[in-house]
Amino acid sequence: MEESTDFLNWDRTQLNKHYEALKEKYAGYKHQAMKLDMSRGKPSPEQLELSISMLDIVTSRDRLTAMDGTDCLNYGGVDGIPEAKQWFASMLGVRSNEIIIGGNSSLTMMHDTLSRAMLHGVRGSEQPWGKLPAVKFLCPSPGYDRHFAICELLNIEMITVDMLQDGPDMDAVEQLVSQDDTIKGMWCVPKYSNPEGITYSDETVDRLANMTTKAADFRIFWDNAYAVHDLTDQPDHLKNMLDACTDAGNADRVFMFCSTSKVTFPGAGVAAMAASVDNVNAIRKQLAVQTIGPDKINQLRHVRFLQDLDHLREHMKQHAAILKPKFDLVLNKLESELGGNNIAAWNRPNGGYFISLNTWDGCAKAVVQMAAEAGVTLTEAGATFPYGNDPRDRNIRIAPSFPSLNELEKSIEVLCICIQLASINKILTA
Amino acid sequence: MEESTDFLNWDRTQLNKHYEALKEKYAGYKHQAMKLDMSRGKPSPEQLELSISMLDIVTSRDRLTAMDGTDCLNYGGVDGIPEAKQWFASMLGVRSNEIIIGGNSSLTMMHDTLSRAMLHGVRGSEQPWGKLPAVKFLCPSPGYDRHFAICELLNIEMITVDMLQDGPDMDAVEQLVSQDDTIKGMWCVPKYSNPEGITYSDETVDRLANMTTKAADFRIFWDNAYAVHDLTDQPDHLKNMLDACTDAGNADRVFMFCSTSKVTFPGAGVAAMAASVDNVNAIRKQLAVQTIGPDKINQLRHVRFLQDLDHLREHMKQHAAILKPKFDLVLNKLESELGGNNIAAWNRPNGGYFISLNTWDGCAKAVVQMAAEAGVTLTEAGATFPYGNDPRDRNIRIAPSFPSLNELEKSIEVLCICIQLASINKILTA
Repeated sequence: MEESTDFLNWDRTQLNKHYEALKEKYAGYKHQAMKLDMSRGKPSPEQLELSISMLDIVTSRDRLTAMDGTDCLNYGGVDGIPEAKQWFASMLGVRSNEIIIGGNSSLTMMHDTLSRAMLHGVRGSEQPWGKLPAVKFLCPSPGYDRHFAICELLNIEMITVDMLQDGPDMDAVEQLVSQDDTIKGMWCVPKYSNPEGITYSDETVDRLANMTTKAADFRIFWDNAYAVHDLTDQPDHLKNMLDACTDAGNADRVFMFCSTSKVTFPGAGVAAMAASVDNVNAIRKQLAVQTIGPDKINQLRHVRFLQDLDHLREHMKQHAAILKPKFDLVLNKLESELGGNNIAAWNRPNGGYFISLNTWDGCAKAVVQMAAEAGVTLTEAGATFPYGNDPRDRNIRIAPSFPSLNELEKSIEVLCICIQLASINKILTA
Repeated sequence: MEESTDFLNWDRTQLNKHYEALKEKYAGYKHQAMKLDMSRGKPSPEQLELSISMLDIVTSRDRLTAMDGTDCLNYGGVDGIPEAKQWFASMLGVRSNEIIIGGNSSLTMMHDTLSRAMLHGVRGSEQPWGKLPAVKFLCPSPGYDRHFAICELLNIEMITVDMLQDGPDMDAVEQLVSQDDTIKGMWCVPKYSNPEGITYSDETVDRLANMTTKAADFRIFWDNAYAVHDLTDQPDHLKNMLDACTDAGNADRVFMFCSTSKVTFPGAGVAAMAASVDNVNAIRKQLAVQTIGPDKINQLRHVRFLQDLDHLREHMKQHAAILKPKFDLVLNKLESELGGNNIAAWNRPNGGYFISLNTWDGCAKAVVQMAAEAGVTLTEAGATFPYGNDPRDRNIRIAPSFPSLNELEKSIEVLCICIQLASINKILTA
């Protein structure tokens, strides 16, 4: 009879023996004094190289006017040049007049949009959100730590909602927003969610668009960071949220965000937001006070380099060709090291930048700390939950994009050793 | 005896005759249906051409790492790359660790800094400014309309302070800030002020640095937009405000701002702010939540193109060579058309982007409207005062940089006709 791989079926002798063997392996890795970073969803140098010719595409010899005649070198255009609006509109499936172009960072656009809501309210607000005794946001979790950090900075109370396999737990969401008018908004990473790689189902999108909210000025911050970041030939499909909101008679409900950070360069990209024409007009009025406008030459550079949707898709396939082997390596390694041990569960996303792994309850912090001591930096345990507090202390976000395959292999080996050590320790000390 | 040119010495017959002649000239210009814009301090195409080779300076064949090894294409660096900090530090006469680099727009940095003060307070605030019943700012006027617009957007009450020949009326400033703790800050354009081209004297700088403010968290927003924008070989000297504040024991008092908008490209420049290390550290903490960081490739581009202070000075001399003839034309024309009429007074700045002109009280609006009807767009009358309200309705801001010499000549002719018409009209209807 084959020996069971399930740790729960092992006796203490078996566990102790395995624990000692793992500790020895761990010590060996620790001795190597590695410095491996799997903490952030950062493109690798090879991916950056895919767009390097963009740096040669707008030179002193090129036309520097936008299609409407705007001199891109001079002042003008707080919300972007027409061709950049067209390009982002086609990527997000909206119309040009529903787009506002920003600077290098979509995170900045989200922060600014929420800041403005606090200071002035949004279209339809009776008063600035910051004047209210409390403002709350729904935070499907695990989620993106930097969304949560913005809420914390702005003193917005975060309410955790579970992520299910087809998006946030909509029963919970619908109940919460229907009863509490201090719940003013919600964070969503609707496609290849950070960190679980889940894409919201059509039903989830429709329920979000149609649900009754007690706050009349409720807003969904729709961070479509991975809109075109597919890893496979069978990419997930995301229903158009602006259309869904419009169809539901709630056109103003959604603010969509995206950027080229993981298309061209995180350090020199272009961000954009999309919303109803009424929302866009209201925001543009404030932007006219806030800025002389974002870099128009970089918009030209992007539009000329990325061309159209077909070209973008080909470009993203090149990203996938670099990323997919890394995801596969991680997934295969997790399977070979932990498969059947019954101590961890992980997802197999069709796109995005992360693999989310759940340990046994109460083990994630210990694992992340052990890995760090062996030179492998993971996203801080808890970071994927509001206030950095994972109530079950089990979620670990793996970001395989930046390290080389070789580094990745070592990192995952270390990670798997740490997970086993923490799990066995949990049984032995139970 | 020579005829007096002073309108006040003329009798009604002389005035009526001149009025009719002017009206005929005015009608002639109106008939030409010109479209001339002197409304904004916008560099001309010839000035933009001075920096055009900057577009060729960072290509795919160049090193794309910062001096500290940062890959400028990737994530990292919320406050700028070291060489950009060094460059702006040398321009502003501060140290690198007193610099934060922003995106394309210094106006955005000012808006964001003030927004953060409203939402969170500044270093040393007992609470966010936005939680106070009232927040007031001193606004030396005439001043920059976009500063005033930010205050209006943020519901900050503006208190007008007169501009004198060596800066704001410091007696008034000192009295106001010593008595009212709701006065939290002050706008300053300390060198070649917008619109008067006045540079603050050393004494003014020292008094601003040393004055006792009732608000412990008082901040001066020091918009050094024209720091290196000299027009003559005898440029104005501005005392270093951060040094002065530090010497006075008020190191945290000043936020300095500047940009390359009028050095390289308004549409694709780099902005920066400077402040005490403590202020910078406090802001950097918030920026880490607010953004993934500004465009680092554009910072590289700027540093490599602008090189050092000597090179910058040579570059700015080329700007001056284009701008000076325009300023001279305006000044000569004003002198030849209005000199001795005793109906207008204007400044002769050594730098900056504007010529400020005062008509007789109550004439500015009429002049600007008449000019507009003849196809010459000036900055809206009143715009140089808080709430767009020039109490004496006399200030007109002339922005000579953008039009060609030929266009400028016609524009000033029209302007001078309109000033004469409005002035004579004032006497005749008095």
